[in-house]
Amino acid sequence: MSQPMIILYDVPSNIPQPWAPNIWRVRLILNFKRLPYRTAWVEFPDVEETLHGIGAPPTSVKNDGRPVFSLPVIVDPIRSPQVPIVLSNANLIAEYLEVTYPARQVFPEGSRALQALFVHYIQEILAKPLLPIMVPLSHQRLPERSQNHFLSGMNSSHLSVPLEREQAWRAVQEQFDFLANILDKNSGADGDGVVAMGHELTYADFAIVSVLIWVEKVAPHDGWVRIRQWNGGRWGKLWERCKSCMDVF
Amino acid sequence: MSQPMIILYDVPSNIPQPWAPNIWRVRLILNFKRLPYRTAWVEFPDVEETLHGIGAPPTSVKNDGRPVFSLPVIVDPIRSPQVPIVLSNANLIAEYLEVTYPARQVFPEGSRALQALFVHYIQEILAKPLLPIMVPLSHQRLPERSQNHFLSGMNSSHLSVPLEREQAWRAVQEQFDFLANILDKNSGADGDGVVAMGHELTYADFAIVSVLIWVEKVAPHDGWVRIRQWNGGRWGKLWERCKSCMDVF
Repeated sequence: MSQPMIILYDVPSNIPQPWAPNIWRVRLILNFKRLPYRTAWVEFPDVEETLHGIGAPPTSVKNDGRPVFSLPVIVDPIRSPQVPIVLSNANLIAEYLEVTYPARQVFPEGSRALQALFVHYIQEILAKPLLPIMVPLSHQRLPERSQNHFLSGMNSSHLSVPLEREQAWRAVQEQFDFLANILDKNSGADGDGVVAMGHELTYADFAIVSVLIWVEKVAPHDGWVRIRQWNGGRWGKLWERCKSCMDVF
Repeated sequence: MSQPMIILYDVPSNIPQPWAPNIWRVRLILNFKRLPYRTAWVEFPDVEETLHGIGAPPTSVKNDGRPVFSLPVIVDPIRSPQVPIVLSNANLIAEYLEVTYPARQVFPEGSRALQALFVHYIQEILAKPLLPIMVPLSHQRLPERSQNHFLSGMNSSHLSVPLEREQAWRAVQEQFDFLANILDKNSGADGDGVVAMGHELTYADFAIVSVLIWVEKVAPHDGWVRIRQWNGGRWGKLWERCKSCMDVF
Protein backbone atom coordinates (compact mmCIF):
# COMPACT_ATOMS: atom_id res chain seq x y z
CA MET A 1 0.00 0.00 0.00
CA SER A 2 1.37 3.41 -0.90
CA GLN A 3 2.14 6.03 1.72
CA PRO A 4 -0.56 8.71 2.07
CA MET A 5 0.66 12.04 0.72
CA ILE A 6 -0.25 15.68 1.12
CA ILE A 7 -1.47 17.24 -2.12
CA LEU A 8 -0.46 20.84 -2.83
CA TYR A 9 -2.43 22.60 -5.56
CA ASP A 10 -0.45 24.91 -7.84
CA VAL A 11 -0.85 26.49 -11.28
CA PRO A 12 1.13 25.26 -14.31
CA SER A 13 2.97 27.67 -16.57
CA ASN A 14 5.19 27.49 -19.62
CA ILE A 15 8.40 27.75 -17.61
CA PRO A 16 9.89 24.64 -16.02
CA GLN A 17 9.16 25.55 -12.41
CA PRO A 18 6.24 27.02 -10.50
CA TRP A 19 6.56 30.63 -9.39
CA ALA A 20 3.49 31.79 -7.42
CA PRO A 21 4.95 33.16 -4.18
CA ASN A 22 2.04 32.32 -1.85
CA ILE A 23 2.15 28.71 -3.02
CA TRP A 24 5.94 28.52 -2.69
CA ARG A 25 5.59 29.67 0.93
CA VAL A 26 3.72 26.41 1.61
CA ARG A 27 5.97 24.23 -0.58
CA LEU A 28 9.06 25.52 1.26
CA ILE A 29 7.52 24.42 4.56
CA LEU A 30 6.54 21.00 3.17
CA ASN A 31 10.11 20.49 1.95
CA PHE A 32 11.65 21.90 5.13
CA LYS A 33 9.59 19.56 7.30
CA ARG A 34 10.34 16.68 4.87
CA LEU A 35 6.67 15.82 4.58
CA PRO A 36 5.55 13.49 1.77
CA TYR A 37 3.63 15.54 -0.79
CA ARG A 38 2.99 15.94 -4.46
CA THR A 39 1.86 18.92 -6.49
CA ALA A 40 -1.48 18.81 -8.29
CA TRP A 41 -1.48 21.18 -11.25
CA VAL A 42 -4.66 23.06 -11.94
CA GLU A 43 -5.06 25.78 -14.57
CA PHE A 44 -6.52 29.12 -13.47
CA PRO A 45 -9.84 28.60 -15.29
CA ASP A 46 -10.33 25.34 -13.37
CA VAL A 47 -9.30 26.54 -9.90
CA GLU A 48 -12.76 27.43 -8.62
CA GLU A 49 -14.45 24.25 -9.78
CA THR A 50 -11.58 22.06 -8.58
CA LEU A 51 -11.44 23.63 -5.13
CA HIS A 52 -15.20 23.60 -4.78
CA GLY A 53 -15.13 19.93 -5.74
CA ILE A 54 -12.68 18.95 -3.00
CA GLY A 55 -14.49 21.00 -0.36
CA ALA A 56 -11.78 23.64 0.07
CA PRO A 57 -12.89 26.60 2.19
CA PRO A 58 -13.25 29.87 0.25
CA THR A 59 -10.58 32.45 1.07
CA SER A 60 -12.80 35.51 0.81
CA VAL A 61 -16.19 36.72 -0.36
CA LYS A 62 -16.98 38.96 -3.33
CA ASN A 63 -19.06 42.11 -3.00
CA ASP A 64 -22.07 40.20 -4.32
CA GLY A 65 -21.66 37.56 -1.63
CA ARG A 66 -20.19 34.83 -3.84
CA PRO A 67 -17.24 32.91 -2.35
CA VAL A 68 -13.73 33.32 -3.77
CA PHE A 69 -11.55 30.22 -4.08
CA SER A 70 -7.83 30.74 -4.38
CA LEU A 71 -4.54 28.88 -4.04
CA PRO A 72 -2.66 27.60 -2.17
CA VAL A 73 -4.80 24.70 -1.03
CA ILE A 74 -3.60 21.49 0.55
CA VAL A 75 -5.32 18.16 1.12
CA ASP A 76 -3.74 16.17 3.92
CA PRO A 77 -4.81 12.52 4.30
CA ILE A 78 -1.84 11.49 6.47
CA ARG A 79 -3.44 11.51 9.91
CA SER A 80 -6.94 10.75 8.76
CA PRO A 81 -7.05 8.97 5.38
CA GLN A 82 -10.86 8.61 5.46
CA VAL A 83 -11.52 12.31 6.10
CA PRO A 84 -8.53 14.25 4.79
CA ILE A 85 -7.95 17.76 6.05
CA VAL A 86 -8.57 20.36 3.32
CA LEU A 87 -7.19 23.84 3.93
CA SER A 88 -6.76 27.10 2.02
CA ASN A 89 -4.78 30.27 2.86
CA ALA A 90 -0.98 30.05 3.15
CA ASN A 91 -0.86 31.37 6.72
CA LEU A 92 -3.50 28.97 7.99
CA ILE A 93 -1.78 26.09 6.20
CA ALA A 94 1.55 27.09 7.75
CA GLU A 95 0.04 27.13 11.24
CA TYR A 96 -1.72 23.80 10.63
CA LEU A 97 1.47 22.12 9.42
CA GLU A 98 3.41 23.43 12.43
CA VAL A 99 0.87 22.13 14.94
CA THR A 100 0.34 18.79 13.17
CA TYR A 101 4.00 18.12 12.29
CA PRO A 102 5.99 19.96 14.97
CA ALA A 103 9.40 18.50 14.06
CA ARG A 104 11.70 21.02 12.35
CA GLN A 105 9.65 23.96 13.62
CA VAL A 106 9.15 27.09 11.53
CA PHE A 107 7.67 29.14 14.40
CA PRO A 108 10.07 29.21 17.38
CA GLU A 109 8.18 29.51 20.67
CA GLY A 110 6.44 32.83 21.13
CA SER A 111 7.20 34.05 17.60
CA ARG A 112 3.88 33.48 15.84
CA ALA A 113 2.50 36.99 16.17
CA LEU A 114 5.75 38.68 15.20
CA GLN A 115 6.19 36.35 12.26
CA ALA A 116 2.59 36.88 11.15
CA LEU A 117 3.15 40.62 11.02
CA PHE A 118 6.50 40.15 9.27
CA VAL A 119 4.93 37.96 6.57
CA HIS A 120 2.07 40.44 6.16
CA TYR A 121 4.65 43.17 5.66
CA ILE A 122 6.57 41.17 3.04
CA GLN A 123 3.40 40.46 1.09
CA GLU A 124 1.66 43.81 1.33
CA ILE A 125 4.47 46.35 1.54
CA LEU A 126 7.81 44.92 0.41
CA ALA A 127 6.33 43.13 -2.61
CA LYS A 128 4.05 45.99 -3.65
CA PRO A 129 6.45 47.87 -5.97
CA LEU A 130 7.28 44.54 -7.62
CA LEU A 131 3.72 44.15 -8.88
CA PRO A 132 3.88 46.54 -11.88
CA ILE A 133 7.00 44.72 -13.08
CA MET A 134 6.15 41.15 -12.16
CA VAL A 135 2.43 40.83 -12.83
CA PRO A 136 2.68 41.40 -16.62
CA LEU A 137 5.69 39.09 -16.85
CA SER A 138 3.97 36.39 -14.81
CA HIS A 139 0.94 36.68 -17.05
CA GLN A 140 3.07 36.03 -20.15
CA ARG A 141 4.39 32.82 -18.60
CA LEU A 142 0.94 31.25 -18.31
CA PRO A 143 -0.61 28.72 -20.71
CA GLU A 144 -2.87 30.57 -23.14
CA ARG A 145 -6.06 29.22 -21.62
CA SER A 146 -5.06 30.56 -18.19
CA GLN A 147 -4.09 34.05 -19.25
CA ASN A 148 -7.58 35.52 -19.21
CA HIS A 149 -8.36 34.16 -15.79
CA PHE A 150 -5.13 35.22 -14.14
CA LEU A 151 -6.16 38.79 -13.73
CA SER A 152 -9.83 38.33 -12.90
CA GLY A 153 -10.70 41.20 -10.64
CA MET A 154 -7.56 43.13 -11.57
CA ASN A 155 -7.45 46.23 -13.68
CA SER A 156 -6.18 45.49 -17.19
CA SER A 157 -3.61 48.27 -16.74
CA HIS A 158 -1.72 45.76 -14.60
CA LEU A 159 -0.84 43.99 -17.83
CA SER A 160 1.35 46.68 -19.33
CA VAL A 161 4.98 46.53 -18.34
CA PRO A 162 5.89 49.95 -16.86
CA LEU A 163 7.74 52.23 -19.25
CA GLU A 164 9.90 53.56 -16.45
CA ARG A 165 11.44 50.24 -15.60
CA GLU A 166 14.50 51.66 -13.89
CA GLN A 167 12.32 53.84 -11.69
CA ALA A 168 10.16 50.84 -10.84
CA TRP A 169 13.24 48.81 -9.88
CA ARG A 170 14.50 51.68 -7.72
CA ALA A 171 11.24 51.57 -5.75
CA VAL A 172 11.77 47.83 -5.28
CA GLN A 173 15.36 48.40 -4.17
CA GLU A 174 14.28 50.93 -1.54
CA GLN A 175 12.06 48.28 0.02
CA PHE A 176 14.87 45.72 0.01
CA ASP A 177 17.29 48.25 1.49
CA PHE A 178 14.88 48.92 4.33
CA LEU A 179 14.38 45.21 4.98
CA ALA A 180 18.14 44.59 4.90
CA ASN A 181 18.55 47.23 7.61
CA ILE A 182 15.95 45.45 9.71
CA LEU A 183 17.54 42.03 9.18
CA ASP A 184 20.97 43.43 10.09
CA LYS A 185 19.67 43.78 13.68
CA ASN A 186 20.23 40.05 14.11
CA SER A 187 23.86 39.96 13.14
CA GLY A 188 26.73 39.64 15.62
CA ALA A 189 26.18 37.27 18.53
CA ASP A 190 22.45 37.33 17.96
CA GLY A 191 22.43 35.89 14.45
CA ASP A 192 24.25 34.62 11.40
CA GLY A 193 23.44 37.75 9.40
CA VAL A 194 21.33 35.86 6.87
CA VAL A 195 18.12 34.50 8.39
CA ALA A 196 15.40 36.53 10.09
CA MET A 197 15.43 34.87 13.51
CA GLY A 198 19.08 34.45 14.32
CA HIS A 199 20.36 31.07 13.22
CA GLU A 200 17.60 28.75 11.98
CA LEU A 201 15.25 29.13 9.02
CA THR A 202 11.72 30.15 9.96
CA TYR A 203 8.47 31.08 8.23
CA ALA A 204 9.68 34.68 7.91
CA ASP A 205 12.55 33.54 5.69
CA PHE A 206 10.23 31.49 3.52
CA ALA A 207 8.07 34.59 3.00
CA ILE A 208 11.10 36.49 1.66
CA VAL A 209 12.45 33.59 -0.38
CA SER A 210 9.06 33.03 -2.00
CA VAL A 211 9.31 36.53 -3.43
CA LEU A 212 12.89 35.86 -4.57
CA ILE A 213 11.79 32.63 -6.28
CA TRP A 214 9.01 34.52 -8.06
CA VAL A 215 11.56 36.98 -9.42
CA GLU A 216 14.11 34.27 -10.28
CA LYS A 217 11.60 32.14 -12.20
CA VAL A 218 9.76 34.90 -14.02
CA ALA A 219 12.44 37.59 -14.44
CA PRO A 220 15.77 35.76 -14.12
CA HIS A 221 17.90 38.15 -16.15
CA ASP A 222 16.26 41.49 -15.54
CA GLY A 223 15.23 40.85 -11.94
CA TRP A 224 17.09 38.21 -10.02
CA VAL A 225 20.44 39.31 -11.42
CA ARG A 226 19.82 42.69 -9.81
CA ILE A 227 18.38 41.61 -6.48
CA ARG A 228 20.99 38.95 -5.72
CA GLN A 229 23.66 41.66 -5.77
CA TRP A 230 21.87 44.11 -3.51
CA ASN A 231 22.74 44.58 0.19
CA GLY A 232 26.08 42.83 0.08
CA GLY A 233 24.66 39.73 -1.55
CA ARG A 234 22.32 39.10 1.39
CA TRP A 235 19.46 37.82 -0.79
CA GLY A 236 21.70 35.43 -2.70
CA LYS A 237 22.95 34.04 0.62
CA LEU A 238 19.41 33.57 1.89
CA TRP A 239 18.56 31.81 -1.39
CA GLU A 240 21.46 29.41 -0.88
CA ARG A 241 20.32 28.70 2.69
CA CYS A 242 16.87 27.76 1.38
CA LYS A 243 17.99 25.90 -1.74
CA SER A 244 17.53 22.48 -0.15
CA CYS A 245 13.84 23.34 0.30
CA MET A 246 13.24 24.24 -3.34
CA ASP A 247 12.48 20.81 -4.78
CA VAL A 248 9.16 20.44 -6.57
CA PHE A 249 7.50 17.09 -5.96
CA MET B 1 28.78 59.87 46.81
CA SER B 2 25.56 59.57 44.89
CA GLN B 3 24.90 56.75 42.45
CA PRO B 4 25.38 57.70 38.79
CA MET B 5 22.07 57.86 36.98
CA ILE B 6 20.88 57.70 33.41
CA ILE B 7 19.22 60.93 32.30
CA LEU B 8 16.20 60.67 29.98
CA TYR B 9 15.20 63.86 28.19
CA ASP B 10 11.47 64.48 27.83
CA VAL B 11 9.16 67.43 27.15
CA PRO B 12 6.99 68.96 29.90
CA SER B 13 3.30 69.64 29.35
CA ASN B 14 0.39 71.00 31.34
CA ILE B 15 -0.89 67.53 32.25
CA PRO B 16 0.60 65.66 35.19
CA GLN B 17 2.39 62.97 33.21
CA PRO B 18 4.50 62.85 30.05
CA TRP B 19 2.84 61.44 26.95
CA ALA B 20 5.25 61.40 23.97
CA PRO B 21 5.13 57.77 22.76
CA ASN B 22 8.71 57.52 21.44
CA ILE B 23 10.03 58.72 24.79
CA TRP B 24 7.76 56.39 26.75
CA ARG B 25 9.18 53.48 24.75
CA VAL B 26 12.55 54.21 26.34
CA ARG B 27 11.16 54.97 29.82
CA LEU B 28 9.29 51.65 29.85
CA ILE B 29 12.58 49.84 29.18
CA LEU B 30 14.42 51.82 31.88
CA ASN B 31 11.69 50.92 34.39
CA PHE B 32 11.48 47.30 33.21
CA LYS B 33 15.22 46.84 33.59
CA ARG B 34 15.09 48.68 36.94
CA LEU B 35 17.87 51.02 35.90
CA PRO B 36 18.49 54.17 37.96
CA TYR B 37 17.39 57.18 35.94
CA ARG B 38 15.78 60.55 36.17
CA THR B 39 13.87 62.61 33.63
CA ALA B 40 15.28 65.96 32.50
CA TRP B 41 12.51 68.22 31.26
CA VAL B 42 13.26 70.37 28.25
CA GLU B 43 10.73 72.53 26.45
CA PHE B 44 10.42 72.15 22.67
CA PRO B 45 12.03 75.54 21.90
CA ASP B 46 15.11 74.47 23.90
CA VAL B 47 15.48 70.93 22.56
CA GLU B 48 17.94 71.68 19.78
CA GLU B 49 20.26 73.86 21.88
CA THR B 50 20.14 71.46 24.83
CA LEU B 51 20.89 68.38 22.76
CA HIS B 52 23.60 70.16 20.81
CA GLY B 53 25.10 71.23 24.14
CA ILE B 54 25.35 67.69 25.49
CA GLY B 55 26.74 66.32 22.25
CA ALA B 56 23.71 64.24 21.30
CA PRO B 57 23.87 62.85 17.77
CA PRO B 58 21.36 64.37 15.33
CA THR B 59 18.57 62.00 14.32
CA SER B 60 18.24 63.19 10.73
CA VAL B 61 19.27 65.92 8.31
CA LYS B 62 17.11 68.65 6.77
CA ASN B 63 16.92 69.25 3.03
CA ASP B 64 19.32 72.16 3.45
CA GLY B 65 21.85 69.91 5.20
CA ARG B 66 21.27 71.18 8.75
CA PRO B 67 21.09 68.49 11.44
CA VAL B 68 17.79 67.69 13.19
CA PHE B 69 17.88 67.00 16.94
CA SER B 70 14.94 65.16 18.43
CA LEU B 71 13.94 63.25 21.54
CA PRO B 72 14.28 60.75 23.09
CA VAL B 73 17.90 61.22 24.15
CA ILE B 74 19.65 59.53 27.06
CA VAL B 75 22.90 60.29 28.82
CA ASP B 76 24.34 57.25 30.58
CA PRO B 77 27.25 57.84 32.99
CA ILE B 78 26.90 54.48 34.80
CA ARG B 79 29.68 52.52 33.14
CA SER B 80 31.87 55.46 32.29
CA PRO B 81 31.23 58.49 34.55
CA GLN B 82 34.02 60.54 32.91
CA VAL B 83 32.76 60.05 29.36
CA PRO B 84 29.04 59.33 29.57
CA ILE B 85 27.36 57.65 26.62
CA VAL B 86 24.99 60.06 24.83
CA LEU B 87 22.44 58.50 22.48
CA SER B 88 19.42 59.56 20.45
CA ASN B 89 16.75 57.52 18.59
CA ALA B 90 14.49 55.21 20.60
CA ASN B 91 15.45 52.05 18.70
CA LEU B 92 19.18 52.66 19.06
CA ILE B 93 18.72 53.45 22.75
CA ALA B 94 16.71 50.24 23.21
CA GLU B 95 19.44 48.17 21.56
CA TYR B 96 22.15 49.91 23.60
CA LEU B 97 20.33 49.31 26.89
CA GLU B 98 19.81 45.64 26.05
CA VAL B 99 23.48 45.06 25.23
CA THR B 100 24.77 47.10 28.17
CA TYR B 101 22.27 45.89 30.77
CA PRO B 102 21.24 42.41 29.59
CA ALA B 103 19.31 41.42 32.72
CA ARG B 104 15.54 41.35 32.20
CA GLN B 105 15.92 41.19 28.43
CA VAL B 106 13.50 42.93 26.09
CA PHE B 107 14.79 41.17 22.94
CA PRO B 108 14.63 37.37 23.36
CA GLU B 109 17.36 35.65 21.36
CA GLY B 110 16.93 35.94 17.62
CA SER B 111 13.99 38.34 17.84
CA ARG B 112 15.67 41.68 17.08
CA ALA B 113 14.83 41.85 13.39
CA LEU B 114 11.24 40.73 13.83
CA GLN B 115 10.75 43.14 16.72
CA ALA B 116 12.33 45.98 14.76
CA LEU B 117 9.83 45.49 11.95
CA PHE B 118 6.98 45.14 14.44
CA VAL B 119 7.87 48.42 16.14
CA HIS B 120 8.24 50.13 12.75
CA TYR B 121 4.75 48.89 11.89
CA ILE B 122 3.25 50.18 15.14
CA GLN B 123 4.81 53.62 14.63
CA GLU B 124 4.24 54.08 10.92
CA ILE B 125 1.07 52.16 10.15
CA LEU B 126 -0.94 51.37 13.30
CA ALA B 127 -0.48 54.85 14.78
CA LYS B 128 -1.05 56.74 11.50
CA PRO B 129 -4.84 57.18 11.70
CA LEU B 130 -4.40 58.38 15.30
CA LEU B 131 -2.42 61.41 14.16
CA PRO B 132 -5.33 63.61 12.97
CA ILE B 133 -7.02 63.05 16.33
CA MET B 134 -4.02 63.06 18.65
CA VAL B 135 -1.70 65.69 17.23
CA PRO B 136 -4.07 68.66 17.79
CA LEU B 137 -4.94 67.40 21.29
CA SER B 138 -1.27 66.88 22.17
CA HIS B 139 -0.51 70.39 20.97
CA GLN B 140 -3.13 71.84 23.30
CA ARG B 141 -1.49 70.12 26.27
CA LEU B 142 1.82 71.90 25.79
CA PRO B 143 3.06 74.97 27.71
CA GLU B 144 2.35 78.06 25.63
CA ARG B 145 5.98 78.67 24.79
CA SER B 146 6.29 75.15 23.34
CA GLN B 147 3.20 75.20 21.18
CA ASN B 148 4.74 76.96 18.20
CA HIS B 149 7.73 74.68 18.12
CA PHE B 150 5.80 71.45 18.44
CA LEU B 151 4.75 71.35 14.85
CA SER B 152 7.85 72.74 13.18
CA GLY B 153 7.98 71.09 9.82
CA MET B 154 4.36 69.95 10.02
CA ASN B 155 1.54 71.38 7.99
CA SER B 156 -0.64 73.68 10.12
CA SER B 157 -3.66 71.65 8.99
CA HIS B 158 -2.49 69.05 11.48
CA LEU B 159 -3.74 71.38 14.20
CA SER B 160 -7.42 71.19 13.40
CA VAL B 161 -9.28 68.38 15.09
CA PRO B 162 -11.03 66.37 12.35
CA LEU B 163 -14.72 67.14 11.93
CA GLU B 164 -15.50 63.51 11.22
CA ARG B 165 -14.28 62.23 14.57
CA GLU B 166 -16.27 59.02 14.50
CA GLN B 167 -14.91 58.21 11.08
CA ALA B 168 -11.39 58.94 12.27
CA TRP B 169 -11.86 56.62 15.25
CA ARG B 170 -13.20 53.89 12.97
CA ALA B 171 -9.98 54.05 10.97
CA VAL B 172 -8.05 53.68 14.23
CA GLN B 173 -10.21 50.74 15.27
CA GLU B 174 -9.57 48.93 11.98
CA GLN B 175 -5.85 49.08 12.70
CA PHE B 176 -6.31 47.78 16.24
CA ASP B 177 -8.60 45.00 14.99
CA PHE B 178 -5.93 43.91 12.54
CA LEU B 179 -3.23 43.95 15.21
CA ALA B 180 -5.46 42.00 17.63
CA ASN B 181 -5.83 39.30 14.97
CA ILE B 182 -2.07 39.13 14.63
CA LEU B 183 -1.52 38.99 18.41
CA ASP B 184 -4.13 36.24 18.73
CA LYS B 185 -1.66 33.94 16.92
CA ASN B 186 0.22 33.60 20.20
CA SER B 187 -2.66 32.39 22.32
CA GLY B 188 -3.15 28.80 23.40
CA ALA B 189 -0.04 26.89 24.40
CA ASP B 190 2.15 29.41 22.64
CA GLY B 191 1.20 32.47 24.69
CA ASP B 192 -0.85 34.11 27.38
CA GLY B 193 -3.01 35.94 24.85
CA VAL B 194 -1.83 39.37 25.99
CA VAL B 195 1.83 39.98 25.16
CA ALA B 196 3.39 39.88 21.69
CA MET B 197 5.99 37.16 22.25
CA GLY B 198 4.17 34.53 24.23
CA HIS B 199 4.63 35.03 27.95
CA GLU B 200 7.13 37.76 28.80
CA LEU B 201 7.03 41.48 28.04
CA THR B 202 9.30 42.55 25.19
CA TYR B 203 10.12 45.69 23.22
CA ALA B 204 7.16 44.99 20.90
CA ASP B 205 4.75 45.35 23.83
CA PHE B 206 6.35 48.61 24.90
CA ALA B 207 5.83 49.97 21.38
CA ILE B 208 2.10 49.25 21.63
CA VAL B 209 1.77 50.45 25.21
CA SER B 210 3.54 53.72 24.40
CA VAL B 211 0.74 54.47 21.95
CA LEU B 212 -1.86 53.51 24.57
CA ILE B 213 -0.20 55.80 27.12
CA TRP B 214 -0.26 58.65 24.60
CA VAL B 215 -4.02 58.19 24.16
CA GLU B 216 -4.66 57.73 27.88
CA LYS B 217 -2.77 60.88 28.88
CA VAL B 218 -3.95 63.16 26.11
CA ALA B 219 -7.43 61.81 25.31
CA PRO B 220 -8.50 59.88 28.43
CA HIS B 221 -12.26 60.19 28.00
CA ASP B 222 -12.69 60.32 24.26
CA GLY B 223 -9.86 57.94 23.39
CA TRP B 224 -8.70 55.54 26.05
CA VAL B 225 -12.26 54.75 27.15
CA ARG B 226 -12.88 53.48 23.62
CA ILE B 227 -9.66 51.58 23.00
CA ARG B 228 -9.56 49.75 26.32
CA GLN B 229 -12.87 48.10 25.43
CA TRP B 230 -11.89 46.99 21.93
CA ASN B 231 -10.90 43.41 21.08
CA GLY B 232 -12.24 41.81 24.23
CA GLY B 233 -10.40 44.22 26.50
CA ARG B 234 -7.00 43.10 25.15
CA TRP B 235 -5.48 46.59 25.30
CA GLY B 236 -6.60 47.16 28.88
CA LYS B 237 -5.03 43.84 29.85
CA LEU B 238 -1.77 44.77 28.16
CA TRP B 239 -1.85 48.10 29.99
CA GLU B 240 -2.23 46.29 33.32
CA ARG B 241 0.70 44.00 32.46
CA CYS B 242 2.89 47.07 31.85
CA LYS B 243 1.60 49.20 34.70
CA SER B 244 4.58 48.43 36.93
CA CYS B 245 6.81 50.00 34.25
CA MET B 246 4.89 53.28 34.11
CA ASP B 247 6.59 55.19 36.92
CA VAL B 248 8.12 58.54 36.02
CA PHE B 249 11.39 59.21 37.82
